[in-house]
Amino acid sequence: MPETTRRADRLTGNRYGNRPTMKDVAARAGVGLKTVSRVVNGEPGVTPDTERRVREAIDALGFRRNDSARVLRKGRTASIGLILEDLADPFYGPLSRAVEEVARAHGALLINGSSAEDPEREQELALALCARRVDGLVVIPAGDDHRYLEPEMRAGVATVFVDRPAGRIDADVVLSDNYGGARDGVAHLIAHGHRRIGFIGDMPRIHTAAERLRGYRAAMEDAGITVAERWMSLGATDPERVRRAAEEMLAGPDPVTAVFAGNNRVTVTVVRVLAERSRRVALVGFDDFELADLLQPGVTVVAQDSAALGRTAAERLFRQLDGTLIAPERIELPTRLITRGSGELPPAD
Amino acid sequence: MPETTRRADRLTGNRYGNRPTMKDVAARAGVGLKTVSRVVNGEPGVTPDTERRVREAIDALGFRRNDSARVLRKGRTASIGLILEDLADPFYGPLSRAVEEVARAHGALLINGSSAEDPEREQELALALCARRVDGLVVIPAGDDHRYLEPEMRAGVATVFVDRPAGRIDADVVLSDNYGGARDGVAHLIAHGHRRIGFIGDMPRIHTAAERLRGYRAAMEDAGITVAERWMSLGATDPERVRRAAEEMLAGPDPVTAVFAGNNRVTVTVVRVLAERSRRVALVGFDDFELADLLQPGVTVVAQDSAALGRTAAERLFRQLDGTLIAPERIELPTRLITRGSGELPPAD
Repeated sequence: MPETTRRADRLTGNRYGNRPTMKDVAARAGVGLKTVSRVVNGEPGVTPDTERRVREAIDALGFRRNDSARVLRKGRTASIGLILEDLADPFYGPLSRAVEEVARAHGALLINGSSAEDPEREQELALALCARRVDGLVVIPAGDDHRYLEPEMRAGVATVFVDRPAGRIDADVVLSDNYGGARDGVAHLIAHGHRRIGFIGDMPRIHTAAERLRGYRAAMEDAGITVAERWMSLGATDPERVRRAAEEMLAGPDPVTAVFAGNNRVTVTVVRVLAERSRRVALVGFDDFELADLLQPGVTVVAQDSAALGRTAAERLFRQLDGTLIAPERIELPTRLITRGSGELPPAD
Repeated sequence: MPETTRRADRLTGNRYGNRPTMKDVAARAGVGLKTVSRVVNGEPGVTPDTERRVREAIDALGFRRNDSARVLRKGRTASIGLILEDLADPFYGPLSRAVEEVARAHGALLINGSSAEDPEREQELALALCARRVDGLVVIPAGDDHRYLEPEMRAGVATVFVDRPAGRIDADVVLSDNYGGARDGVAHLIAHGHRRIGFIGDMPRIHTAAERLRGYRAAMEDAGITVAERWMSLGATDPERVRRAAEEMLAGPDPVTAVFAGNNRVTVTVVRVLAERSRRVALVGFDDFELADLLQPGVTVVAQDSAALGRTAAERLFRQLDGTLIAPERIELPTRLITRGSGELPPAD
């Protein structure tokens, strides 16, 4: 496979320099290679003092045990990893496919995994992929502290965050304009006469959820509307929680006349709740989704370009690997309001 | 990590025995370990004759170069790989998530990749995951010849095929009853008075597409209906191709009065085509899909249990790894007809 060999060789050099070897560890610790190998592989025959010196050298250099398999890289296929937060969320379908297409165009394989929105799982998976010698990682982060990736990045693993920013490290990130998109969507409802507008979103610790809530608040404030606490509900996006939240806002003497749904998982549940009711309630959802145009009324959405997020992130990753990028950047992609009927309904009262 | 270490150790033993080591190769070739290492790593200093003997031993034993990294397995996290055929097909969302949940319950990480319906890509990805030391593979096959996996399986990689059978090897496979499900769906249309029923499916080389076509033919034959060639269209499931196929069947002097859609990608396009027409055409789709019940009319489907396919396959994989399975089996899961309106419309003429 001369083609893939060339690719793998080329991918080795980049802005972060080469990975440290066992030889580097041995030199720094002032011991022989065999001693480092014993410590790394947990074999006996090393004094506690020597082991301590070796471990200090390992930490200082950011050496990882699997680098002793360095020789195996020769001839192996280049690969990049993608860490999603939910394998079953259709939003990530076009994003994953776009990352895969860019990887393929660069002769690299894509390997995916899911954090299932669990920061520990994200870390475990990211490090497992690094240990399996991926050349780069595209991460949709679940956690908010990514310092665990710094040794990998120093050791040459290209890294781009997408959909949500990295936490406590300086890294490339590709985002949608979550704040601006939500603000536009809510302003659209206000322009159609609504004042009591509900917001149902994901857990507030998630960057996108917090940004979209901020956009909602800004649009309301711009219109001089004081937001009631009971109009806002943030939490898990499972159908039971979202249904309860929607039903509460739609009940009582002063129900909301419109709902802004914080993501596609929320929107499909709100569509169901509204379909069961006779009173018409306006709806704008963040994220487009399949068949939104065929529902009655069609669902007005603030669409992110999921494929463009994936493509932009992956292209940036390969530019890191090519050594043509210097400083990490934050790239924000615009959203687009698509009107289909549900967001243009007037207030029922 | 004593927990994951135990798991990794336990995963090493299974029905296919342990992977051969460089030592085994050296013994069989009658050479020293260093000589094998030189051949494996492409280093100089080996005579052509010795190299040939080593390569023969490697082939005979099914040894893979990356096994020289064997020592690295100590303490590493157990992992399994899942090969999908399309990252953006929502059918695979619940399947992937179910495989992930089973993996997690067994303390293993799940790593995914997509073949993009390309047999070469499938092979490349499967072997790349094996080289990255996955303990097992769940494969939704794109190709029809999986002999390339035999050395891996002999070397101890647990393997289960799902959604479509393995080709030319004896392996565990978990399928839906594609034939029976399609036959029931078409019989349902016949029971509602239809005789001119179209079938739009995926490429005929795909097992599920061929089986569903067989079910369609069986139902028609059972009812004594002679199928016209122009009622059947198999090919890519992109919207353009499906739209053209549907429009052709719906045109002319004797148009079909009902359509059986061969999978969820086909169904959503047919729904669009029918929504544009005034004449009502009945529709039953293979695969359930999100919001099918909220369309007007609701879409009647033959539902596969995508999560059960994934769960069953993954559980079987771990039973292979536990050494509690002996012979490969073919497991078929039933489908379920869900009536929602579109499949119960009478013929328009």
